[in-house]
Amino acid sequence: MKIKGFKFSGINAGIKKNKLDLGLIYSEQPALCVCAFTKNLLKSNSIIVTQQHLKKTNYIRCIIVNSGCANTACGKNGVVDTEQICTVVARKLGISTEEVLIASTGVIGEPLPKQKILSNIDNLISNLSSTKNAILNFAKSIMTTDRKPKIVAQSLPIGNILCIAKGAGMIAPELSVDNHRYATMLVFLLTDINLSKQEMIKIMGEIVVPTFNSFSIDGDTSPNDTIFFVSNCLHNNVKFDADKVQLLMPYFKKICQDMVLKLLYDGEGVTKVVKLIITNCTKTDAQKIAKTISSSLLVKTAVHGADPNWGRILSCCGRSGVEKLNINKVNIWIGKYQVVKNGTSNFVPDSLVRKEMLKSFVEIKIDVGFNLKKKTEYTFFTTDLSKKYVEINSKYKT
Amino acid sequence: MKIKGFKFSGINAGIKKNKLDLGLIYSEQPALCVCAFTKNLLKSNSIIVTQQHLKKTNYIRCIIVNSGCANTACGKNGVVDTEQICTVVARKLGISTEEVLIASTGVIGEPLPKQKILSNIDNLISNLSSTKNAILNFAKSIMTTDRKPKIVAQSLPIGNILCIAKGAGMIAPELSVDNHRYATMLVFLLTDINLSKQEMIKIMGEIVVPTFNSFSIDGDTSPNDTIFFVSNCLHNNVKFDADKVQLLMPYFKKICQDMVLKLLYDGEGVTKVVKLIITNCTKTDAQKIAKTISSSLLVKTAVHGADPNWGRILSCCGRSGVEKLNINKVNIWIGKYQVVKNGTSNFVPDSLVRKEMLKSFVEIKIDVGFNLKKKTEYTFFTTDLSKKYVEINSKYKT
Repeated sequence: MKIKGFKFSGINAGIKKNKLDLGLIYSEQPALCVCAFTKNLLKSNSIIVTQQHLKKTNYIRCIIVNSGCANTACGKNGVVDTEQICTVVARKLGISTEEVLIASTGVIGEPLPKQKILSNIDNLISNLSSTKNAILNFAKSIMTTDRKPKIVAQSLPIGNILCIAKGAGMIAPELSVDNHRYATMLVFLLTDINLSKQEMIKIMGEIVVPTFNSFSIDGDTSPNDTIFFVSNCLHNNVKFDADKVQLLMPYFKKICQDMVLKLLYDGEGVTKVVKLIITNCTKTDAQKIAKTISSSLLVKTAVHGADPNWGRILSCCGRSGVEKLNINKVNIWIGKYQVVKNGTSNFVPDSLVRKEMLKSFVEIKIDVGFNLKKKTEYTFFTTDLSKKYVEINSKYKT
Repeated sequence: MKIKGFKFSGINAGIKKNKLDLGLIYSEQPALCVCAFTKNLLKSNSIIVTQQHLKKTNYIRCIIVNSGCANTACGKNGVVDTEQICTVVARKLGISTEEVLIASTGVIGEPLPKQKILSNIDNLISNLSSTKNAILNFAKSIMTTDRKPKIVAQSLPIGNILCIAKGAGMIAPELSVDNHRYATMLVFLLTDINLSKQEMIKIMGEIVVPTFNSFSIDGDTSPNDTIFFVSNCLHNNVKFDADKVQLLMPYFKKICQDMVLKLLYDGEGVTKVVKLIITNCTKTDAQKIAKTISSSLLVKTAVHGADPNWGRILSCCGRSGVEKLNINKVNIWIGKYQVVKNGTSNFVPDSLVRKEMLKSFVEIKIDVGFNLKKKTEYTFFTTDLSKKYVEINSKYKT
């Protein structure tokens, strides 16, 4: 968890009872920042203010984050109140307001606990530290229904990468890859590697967003999701060429994938993670099938109970909206068994398929059977659906 | 439950243990039949054979239905086996094979229990009767996870209408209104009113399909769904003009709506029914919002727990894909309380909203706020999501 020039803090500001609920990431030097925001047309005031600040500056100094309130749809003064928080943070840190970004997560429509936040900013700043414990406190302060703080780190000769994220429900990133309007969840991807803004945009567009775009817990895309990709470029002064960015790509990919798995396994009520591999169709078609399967209550409950009801998966292919799909060319594997051959049963005994489905990581492969020039493969992750998910979300607010 | 010229039968053929599982509807005279089939590209062999028969004839004599096996994706000989069942039924009834239609419901991919069906056809036919009990037995024989048989009837001076249906899970009719390719679930809409085929197509397209198109239990559109609309025209010989069809429309609408409510309340694990009323946007946009809300796990679980978490509904509007939606013009009511005013909280106390949500029938109204020439209103029904649903569907097959 080594990283140069960043400090962290996580405290209890009384938004939640006895839990860390207010966090701060602080960069000792002005840092480049590239963000990705939710596509949901309902937007948190925190996103609105962060977007306004990013229009004014390429360099930022800190990100303040609260949990327990989404700062969304919480009254007419939402944006003004949010801006005020940033102004106070800026003044106390001796930086300008636009260098302060903000993120929130929690219940939509709850009034923003502005006073609680304002009266705890001194405490928040005085707790800033670069220790492992401070990083952990920050990671805890942004949790909602998350059971565990989520941190992934990688140290390379040319610098360090640290990724902190939260998210367990209302998770279904659906991204449009343009530089300022892609969407995803609350992720803080920090690095001290010396990168240009263009290089950061390239890594964000080619690796970070597509990776966080490829999983869904419950199909509900949140109005608060944000990726903050921040580099303070402190590790060395050598700017490296495009080839070096290509060399970095696998490391960023690994970090993002590891984080996605952490988010999946800590999803609300999750007991199993499903890897969908969809081959021999266009990416658009694969995404349609992945979205249909990952939001099918029948598939998710069957996975939960290890019920070898593969017909539900085949049915999802049929209703996915993929044009010109020939169901008689579809082949499906669950684990090592081919359960569907040419669109119909391959008569594998249920007991064998069930064994594969009893694992906590279930692999489902679907060959869509289009005769394309190139073999294609698209991967998407999802989860099962348990009674625990219903329990958590039927009394989230009450 | 009066209807002229139809006989019914429901028996146990050993497909399921100690439950009625094989049914027959028989028309004493050749009857006109208009059907609507699932849009799912995966299709039951029963649908494939029924479609083949309807291409050859305008008049049918019977519909044989089994539960316990979907007759879908169950091996290469599926269509041949299904046709053989129809041939045997036809021979024993002294009619031609294409006058026999067939429907199935149950697990996808299970082998068709052909021998059990064939060896019970004599028994099935000998049980045919026009008594109330026979109708009830038929309605029971087509049940799967349904808790209750579903029958709605209406007697008019010009004839009788009888609707029998099944369906509790894998229910999300999504219809395309062209005469031979709309989609829905297993519905038998029988009448002895003297109608022409054109009149039947008109009633089907304008009333029956749109009504069954406007609800969803779990978002999973089945490969087996069918509406059979059958008229033996026995009630009188007077063909009536278009105005009379218009007079009939409200009766058909009432019957279909009543049946939709029966299906909703008997949905798998359902404890609450939600009526969504979406105003001031195009029908296409309203359908996008309705689909998003009705398949949102977060909304469905909040409704289940009467959790006044209306932010989830507003968030669904934001991610529904409605173009040019101005979230600041969206207004939302739960029961009698306006919870969202101009896209943000209207600060109604949670305790009041919760009271509305504790009812078994929850009304949610969304004004999308588009400034159209005409006021518009679109209605869609859905259900909550309970632990019971998860329980039923995590061990459906095992």
